[in-house]
Amino acid sequence: MADSTIQIGILGCAEIARKVSRAILLSQTATLYAVGSRSIEKAQKFAADNGFPATGKVYGSYEEVLEDPNVDAVYVPLPTSLHIKWAVLAAQKKKHLLLEKPVALNVEEMDVILAACEANGVQFMDGTMWMHHPRTAKMREFLSDAKQFGELKSVNTCFTFTADQNFLETDIRVKPDLDGLGALGDVGWYCVRGILWAADYELPKSVIALRNPVFNKAGVTISCGASLLWEDGKVGTFHCSFLTNLTMDLTAVGTKGTLHLHDFIIPFEEKKASFISAVECGFKELALGWVPKPSEHTVTTDIPQEALMVREFCKLVGSIKNEGAKPEKKWPTLSRKTTLVLDAVKASIEKGFEAVEIVS
Amino acid sequence: MADSTIQIGILGCAEIARKVSRAILLSQTATLYAVGSRSIEKAQKFAADNGFPATGKVYGSYEEVLEDPNVDAVYVPLPTSLHIKWAVLAAQKKKHLLLEKPVALNVEEMDVILAACEANGVQFMDGTMWMHHPRTAKMREFLSDAKQFGELKSVNTCFTFTADQNFLETDIRVKPDLDGLGALGDVGWYCVRGILWAADYELPKSVIALRNPVFNKAGVTISCGASLLWEDGKVGTFHCSFLTNLTMDLTAVGTKGTLHLHDFIIPFEEKKASFISAVECGFKELALGWVPKPSEHTVTTDIPQEALMVREFCKLVGSIKNEGAKPEKKWPTLSRKTTLVLDAVKASIEKGFEAVEIVS
Repeated sequence: MADSTIQIGILGCAEIARKVSRAILLSQTATLYAVGSRSIEKAQKFAADNGFPATGKVYGSYEEVLEDPNVDAVYVPLPTSLHIKWAVLAAQKKKHLLLEKPVALNVEEMDVILAACEANGVQFMDGTMWMHHPRTAKMREFLSDAKQFGELKSVNTCFTFTADQNFLETDIRVKPDLDGLGALGDVGWYCVRGILWAADYELPKSVIALRNPVFNKAGVTISCGASLLWEDGKVGTFHCSFLTNLTMDLTAVGTKGTLHLHDFIIPFEEKKASFISAVECGFKELALGWVPKPSEHTVTTDIPQEALMVREFCKLVGSIKNEGAKPEKKWPTLSRKTTLVLDAVKASIEKGFEAVEIVS
Repeated sequence: MADSTIQIGILGCAEIARKVSRAILLSQTATLYAVGSRSIEKAQKFAADNGFPATGKVYGSYEEVLEDPNVDAVYVPLPTSLHIKWAVLAAQKKKHLLLEKPVALNVEEMDVILAACEANGVQFMDGTMWMHHPRTAKMREFLSDAKQFGELKSVNTCFTFTADQNFLETDIRVKPDLDGLGALGDVGWYCVRGILWAADYELPKSVIALRNPVFNKAGVTISCGASLLWEDGKVGTFHCSFLTNLTMDLTAVGTKGTLHLHDFIIPFEEKKASFISAVECGFKELALGWVPKPSEHTVTTDIPQEALMVREFCKLVGSIKNEGAKPEKKWPTLSRKTTLVLDAVKASIEKGFEAVEIVS
């Protein structure tokens, strides 16, 4: 590894940090430099199990990772309620920040984090891996092609998985003091990001939650949905849940074309991923079938989307560190828009399914 | 053709009647016996173009078709606002009734039609062709399998096609005095039927229209959507429109399984059709992919779904005619439920997107 490699510290030993550790190795642009946990034994085991080099630093606290002057950037997969404390502290220590989603419990907390990043000149990026798959760029080309796709009019997304009873009662993601957004934050995040992505990140004017949310005993959302409405008549709908079979649908319908996929967040396979596009479909004579039929497109990738995420993050961090570049504003902007919409969904549920205006 | 063949009369020369004429021939259980139009020239041309036998009767009015004692059943593809008059008259003339969808402008009109059918002992069936595809039965098996699919929790449907400016201003389906339900009746019918089908025809408790409907200059709906809510927490959403690319999605998500298809109303091809099912999906270690992946299932059919519809209709008519059977109540029941939901969507739009209770 050359000097240009970005040295990453990881705060905590969350399950998702194992996947990101592997991604850091695969990215070839970053080093697994340090890991910190409140339990040094856990940190030692994590480092040993996840490919840390012999020189990897193992700390018994998050603070020590942030104090280490050789840490360029931190990956923060802590429970959402802890983000504001540790993300702000990381920024203050001039550590670039790769922060797991949902990035904050609400946009007010997120703005505190973003202000700290801005004040300290550090890059912010959230951990939405599918943004970085080359399939996503290919699909974006299709959606942006006025001749093929036309104008977006509706988009529907769905992300659900079946959690077991133990998860529904004890997992971090359903604890009101840890991840108070529940399924909305954990899986709804992707549904909302998918809709915003399809709308080229134009914020909707208002959001109305669907009327059948489900809560666990502690009052945390474990299933919900919403419709998003734009001034120009576009409509987005989504459904997210911990109660049904693993499903990841995105369907975007334009005046001329349609995009379908069933694995938009985590592709069925690591090295290739497909989407279905349909352009100016019509019927055969007497509507006996379709002409043309939708077609499937496969995009391959040498390294998985999470490694491409690390690579993009490190490219930006490297530009700041080595070339005096400014942080890229695109990533915090997308995170903030996603958070704004999640807040509106939550507010709509709390207000009895009223329409909630999005104020950016 | 044997005596047992059902002799069908067609009221009007609508485009869809060409497809159904072909289906009548393919069904091998019915005869293209008569066609009536207000213009006898149109009726003559229709009979000549659509495979009527030399003995086929051609009438210059709908009344004459209904007066012909050899007509067993009529197919009625007239504009929706004319259904009540001609369907009731047909029933009174003891003609069994294959009625195009939407079956009526509202459930009150439909109930008049159904009462006439009941009073005269004639079979009622609507023209929802996809009900009769063997794929639909296969998918029903999957949805009904508690071990594979579990319990339905959410279902999303979408049917849209791009109408040109001429259609949007002048087609029968956007004329307030002919098909006042517009896109809701023409394409939303299928979306609602798809949701009800997935829910095994359990009626939702309430319906709330999405807030972005689009109307043409005459005030007819050309794009809309709604959410359907059940007492047990199930939720259905749909979007229907004349403004976007031909799209026909149905996604049903259960506690254990998921069903996807992209051509649920008219299959991409006439003789084979597929669906995708997924059962108890999870992730590989580190969520690097899915195990198992969803799988595609193809169902073949010798004759197209519309011919199977005619065959089913004629089977029922034959049982009544030849064996003194009673009319099958399943078909009017499904039609009525679909109409009830459409009425609720329309009412919700009219009431400013309030929740409208379904009262059956």
